[in-house]
Amino acid sequence: MNIILLDNGFRLEANGQPLLHHSPDQPAFFVGTGRETMDMYRGNFAIEDYVEARTALTHARLSDDGNSISIDLRRHPGDEPQLTLRVRELADGAELNLESHNSTLNRFWVRLTASADEKVWGGGEQMSYFNLRGRHFPLWTSEPGVGRDKSTYVTWQSDVVNKAGGDYYHTNYPQPTFVSSQRYFCHVDTTCYADFDFRNAEFHELQVWEVPAQILLRSAPTYIDLVDRISAHFGRQPRLPEWQYNGVVLGLKRGEVHALEKLQLALDSDMAVSAIWCEDWAGVRETSFGTRLFWDWKWQPERYPSLDSLIAELQQKGVRFLGYANPYLCVDGDFFPTAEQQGYFATNDAGETAIVDFGEFECGVVDFTNPEAYQWFKERILQQEMIDFGLSGWMADFGEYLPIDVHLHNGVSAREEHNRWPLRWAQINAEAIAERGRTDDVTFFMRAGYTGVQRYCAQLWAGDQSVDFSRHDGLVTVISAALSSGLLGNAYHHSDIGGYTSLFGNTRDAELFRRWAEMAAFTPMMRTHESNRPADNVQWFDEPELTRHLAHMSRVYRHLAPYLKALGDAAAERGTPVQRPLFLHHEDDSRCYDIQDQYLYGPDLLVAPVHEAGRTDWTLYLPAGADWVHCWTGERHAGGQDITVSAPFGQPPVFYRADSAWTELFRTLPQPEGLY
Amino acid sequence: MNIILLDNGFRLEANGQPLLHHSPDQPAFFVGTGRETMDMYRGNFAIEDYVEARTALTHARLSDDGNSISIDLRRHPGDEPQLTLRVRELADGAELNLESHNSTLNRFWVRLTASADEKVWGGGEQMSYFNLRGRHFPLWTSEPGVGRDKSTYVTWQSDVVNKAGGDYYHTNYPQPTFVSSQRYFCHVDTTCYADFDFRNAEFHELQVWEVPAQILLRSAPTYIDLVDRISAHFGRQPRLPEWQYNGVVLGLKRGEVHALEKLQLALDSDMAVSAIWCEDWAGVRETSFGTRLFWDWKWQPERYPSLDSLIAELQQKGVRFLGYANPYLCVDGDFFPTAEQQGYFATNDAGETAIVDFGEFECGVVDFTNPEAYQWFKERILQQEMIDFGLSGWMADFGEYLPIDVHLHNGVSAREEHNRWPLRWAQINAEAIAERGRTDDVTFFMRAGYTGVQRYCAQLWAGDQSVDFSRHDGLVTVISAALSSGLLGNAYHHSDIGGYTSLFGNTRDAELFRRWAEMAAFTPMMRTHESNRPADNVQWFDEPELTRHLAHMSRVYRHLAPYLKALGDAAAERGTPVQRPLFLHHEDDSRCYDIQDQYLYGPDLLVAPVHEAGRTDWTLYLPAGADWVHCWTGERHAGGQDITVSAPFGQPPVFYRADSAWTELFRTLPQPEGLY
Repeated sequence: MNIILLDNGFRLEANGQPLLHHSPDQPAFFVGTGRETMDMYRGNFAIEDYVEARTALTHARLSDDGNSISIDLRRHPGDEPQLTLRVRELADGAELNLESHNSTLNRFWVRLTASADEKVWGGGEQMSYFNLRGRHFPLWTSEPGVGRDKSTYVTWQSDVVNKAGGDYYHTNYPQPTFVSSQRYFCHVDTTCYADFDFRNAEFHELQVWEVPAQILLRSAPTYIDLVDRISAHFGRQPRLPEWQYNGVVLGLKRGEVHALEKLQLALDSDMAVSAIWCEDWAGVRETSFGTRLFWDWKWQPERYPSLDSLIAELQQKGVRFLGYANPYLCVDGDFFPTAEQQGYFATNDAGETAIVDFGEFECGVVDFTNPEAYQWFKERILQQEMIDFGLSGWMADFGEYLPIDVHLHNGVSAREEHNRWPLRWAQINAEAIAERGRTDDVTFFMRAGYTGVQRYCAQLWAGDQSVDFSRHDGLVTVISAALSSGLLGNAYHHSDIGGYTSLFGNTRDAELFRRWAEMAAFTPMMRTHESNRPADNVQWFDEPELTRHLAHMSRVYRHLAPYLKALGDAAAERGTPVQRPLFLHHEDDSRCYDIQDQYLYGPDLLVAPVHEAGRTDWTLYLPAGADWVHCWTGERHAGGQDITVSAPFGQPPVFYRADSAWTELFRTLPQPEGLY
Repeated sequence: MNIILLDNGFRLEANGQPLLHHSPDQPAFFVGTGRETMDMYRGNFAIEDYVEARTALTHARLSDDGNSISIDLRRHPGDEPQLTLRVRELADGAELNLESHNSTLNRFWVRLTASADEKVWGGGEQMSYFNLRGRHFPLWTSEPGVGRDKSTYVTWQSDVVNKAGGDYYHTNYPQPTFVSSQRYFCHVDTTCYADFDFRNAEFHELQVWEVPAQILLRSAPTYIDLVDRISAHFGRQPRLPEWQYNGVVLGLKRGEVHALEKLQLALDSDMAVSAIWCEDWAGVRETSFGTRLFWDWKWQPERYPSLDSLIAELQQKGVRFLGYANPYLCVDGDFFPTAEQQGYFATNDAGETAIVDFGEFECGVVDFTNPEAYQWFKERILQQEMIDFGLSGWMADFGEYLPIDVHLHNGVSAREEHNRWPLRWAQINAEAIAERGRTDDVTFFMRAGYTGVQRYCAQLWAGDQSVDFSRHDGLVTVISAALSSGLLGNAYHHSDIGGYTSLFGNTRDAELFRRWAEMAAFTPMMRTHESNRPADNVQWFDEPELTRHLAHMSRVYRHLAPYLKALGDAAAERGTPVQRPLFLHHEDDSRCYDIQDQYLYGPDLLVAPVHEAGRTDWTLYLPAGADWVHCWTGERHAGGQDITVSAPFGQPPVFYRADSAWTELFRTLPQPEGLY
């Protein structure tokens, strides 16, 4: 990256392309003041901003002390400096370190140079659009929305009944980081609300509700190298636990008898099962949304009478047991009184425990900024009640709900801590496991995230899709989620097979479940979910054909374990995600850049999930530069073309590179013969 | 009003209350630049703004030449003046005349001092909220929306199918003028997009997408006086034509046989009929929205074979004939080729006639900024085809649709002309009538409006309500519409009896029609409409009971003619609207300020329309300071209390002041005896 000094300004360039230009007539830096309103309803935020002042910092004075370039930025010649920008050159980029001299400034905008055909990815885990160009993306962790498309009935009803319909940019995991097709990434160091605007032809405008400490710009010669650097910067995940490769994780949530009965059915059906995941291990309660969990994180014997001995028995059979936790404790649980007495909860304006409504039940928010509360939750709950009890992992749910009106022990405003909360939640889970020395054997999966979650969160899951094929909340959205979060260094991503959210008459059918299971076999974790309303939604154990289908796909998953482990090596060594956009290995093929419903599973498998109902064939694009072999028929096709293949149940459109070192493994994939 | 000079600033006060304060630490004036996107779809606009700069003009330099005070406003001490403000004192206020010195400025904000309990009204014709406080109001003439409430099915479907659902602030008639409970009014002289924001406790912020020429602030000791001054400023309507007092205007739109048959039924039913209004006099076409009119403004003999002789025959019987026109001409009509050949239409970027889609048919927009086109349309169509043909009036529909991407003869941008278009449309109608010397006998009614429409538009009608009791698009909204537009000097307001828009399965029932007719008898024009889908919606001629009900209400209307004429005198002399908010005559009764579902009909009648389904009684508030007599029972009640009265069909909750000079008239109102 080059820094070119101009009269009263400067320019940053990478690979000969301008990245940032600042001069009096074309300023890049703007500051101002605004007053926001932010209303939260059960994790959904209505946010409005009122900008009272926004001024370009047109006047720059540069000084160079040999070590770094320092730039004072003013609104006009007679002005005091509003900001000082210290540019530190890196081998592959630059750090722009910012210091504000005006404490009233709470809005900041910076423009990066854009080109008309440039593409941009990242922004955390984005469900609707992989390429962010042409839209703006508010970056604020929240519920992702139910439906996420104002033209659908489910979205409309979710908005009306629960203020929960959401929009294309809502996500559990935002991150103020993007990757450009100019082969650089940009990261803004902030946890405040931000909005990255990629709608303009000439510039990207990044808005932050503070003057951020740093803007980091780094480039690389290839996307693989770029992801390597991103991942080295934010941290890398541990390898997957060995047991996970054994097969599907069965989500069962109707108590012990149900769990054991369905597990037996699975095993009798020659299903490859790695674990059962019983999120109701700590008990349940009934609400109008469906059966909800009882948020008091310890074994509830009424629902799982023999769990204390059962876990070891299952493990003997090669089946692990997974549970569930989140960072809240319900007021009617056993832990609440202790935590309240010790002052471990976030507080309200009156200094009392802040009570949060989660939908017909109330909870306290454990204040992770309080070292004692953090330690207590980690030891007393995560370690003693969960790891020591025998759980091999859990869904570490939520993290995106920190209310903005609570008070925290560290004195930082909840608005500033809100986006950081998923990181704190990831950290406490990772530490609990690491301190027990079990990082290689106990895992957890999260939907919430923010900058740095890469370092702690073992695995992402895509959150609560609707149980349908819908464009903005159905099966196809988890591909965009995997690709966007993957580029930012989250190597492991998966989703609930069949989706989760079933509301307003929208229920899962067998076709959706099959198509989702077919995709899930080509993700790092294959895991089912009974949904929020198990009785209304089809399950794999409801129909023998569905059981056989899932068993088949689980054997495909298990068969690929050696390959998936090799992908784990790449993730550990270079941060390369398991699921990859096509252009990551095909930079010269322009067609690859616009595809967000296919992915490479490692370098050698191309996966094109069927994401529409009623399809018996599927059309997809094969990247140029290789020949591709259809996994089920062995037919070989040249890359660089669209092809249509038959896509019966059990044979999802998946291809391997003809020149792969793994061809023997791919050629011997379990066939669904006789099943259909 | 007082002007107090401060160090580097000034303050305006009225009645001892601060109206505007400008000083370096508390500036009132802001300027900046923005880039808007405005997408129109059939009169519905999606508008977004991107503000690139907004700066307070903190530095003021004052000079006083004895005649006026001149103030140069700068962003900072070293700045060139951005604006010059010339303050001209008036006996009751001040003119703030503005001159911009920076041609790049296209955003302007001014803050007026607000107090916490202040109320604000006006903003044109506002359907959802009479008191504007607590919300912001974009001021841009457009379709008002179908449903206007994101929680309703009709709104959702309208948004999805037609981008037409709308919101609380959408209106055919916006106006950048408001009235404050501090007893002043403020008018901003602009036709550009504006947004008046009344959400802040300490200030009202008025945004305009240009530096407006003038801000006018005038106060008065009473609201009646204030409306007088507003009305004197914007202009006053002519008196109603004498024939209008004779009874209901029957909207009939299925050709001549239908019109004559239903008229006969009405007359046989002892209905007081002043006119039939046949909007299909120029022909129809079928679309998926329903039967639409043929937009070629002249008699269509196929649909009304004997209309040329019929009009005179009807007039002999005391029944007038009304038609319909709007400012567009359909491409398949007779007038289009002539107008196109003469260059009378607005043009597109290629210099060709701009073709506008009105929903499955296309039209040209007559360019009223072209004096020849204006003259041609006035003479050839409005005068020759309509007045000379014998029409006694017409619905002068539309006016709010000027597309923003057309080019106009006067060279002014369509964005600047858009809001002015309703005024041009009103003017051409008024002039056509005046030039024929028929202002006292021929009338027209419009839904669109803007500043100054008061001077030309004879009567407003409330536009296209949904055929229901809904909060934001039903019966109750036309009361807010009448009160808000009335305060700005529009004395005459009415609505389609039974509403108009019937979409997505929403259809009119008999109860709604009755309740609407009951209200309409207490408005200046009582007029029915068959709706956009006549066959799907109940009509007064469908059921003998409905016919009798309408006949009764029409006799009530006719009975009140002497009183309505007296209200017309007040309108002509002082601009006092016929329908009045309760506080206009009860300034000291604080309860009167929060009521938007009742009105005073003149000083002496209190009308509280039943605007919910299934009601047999109704609760309302009687203003303090008078006793009130129930029109149907003669029961007398003290003012200053809520009361509940029986409200059977035909006896709407209406009361007269016990001390009225018109008690004899009110006591002898036609009773609905025997009808129900």
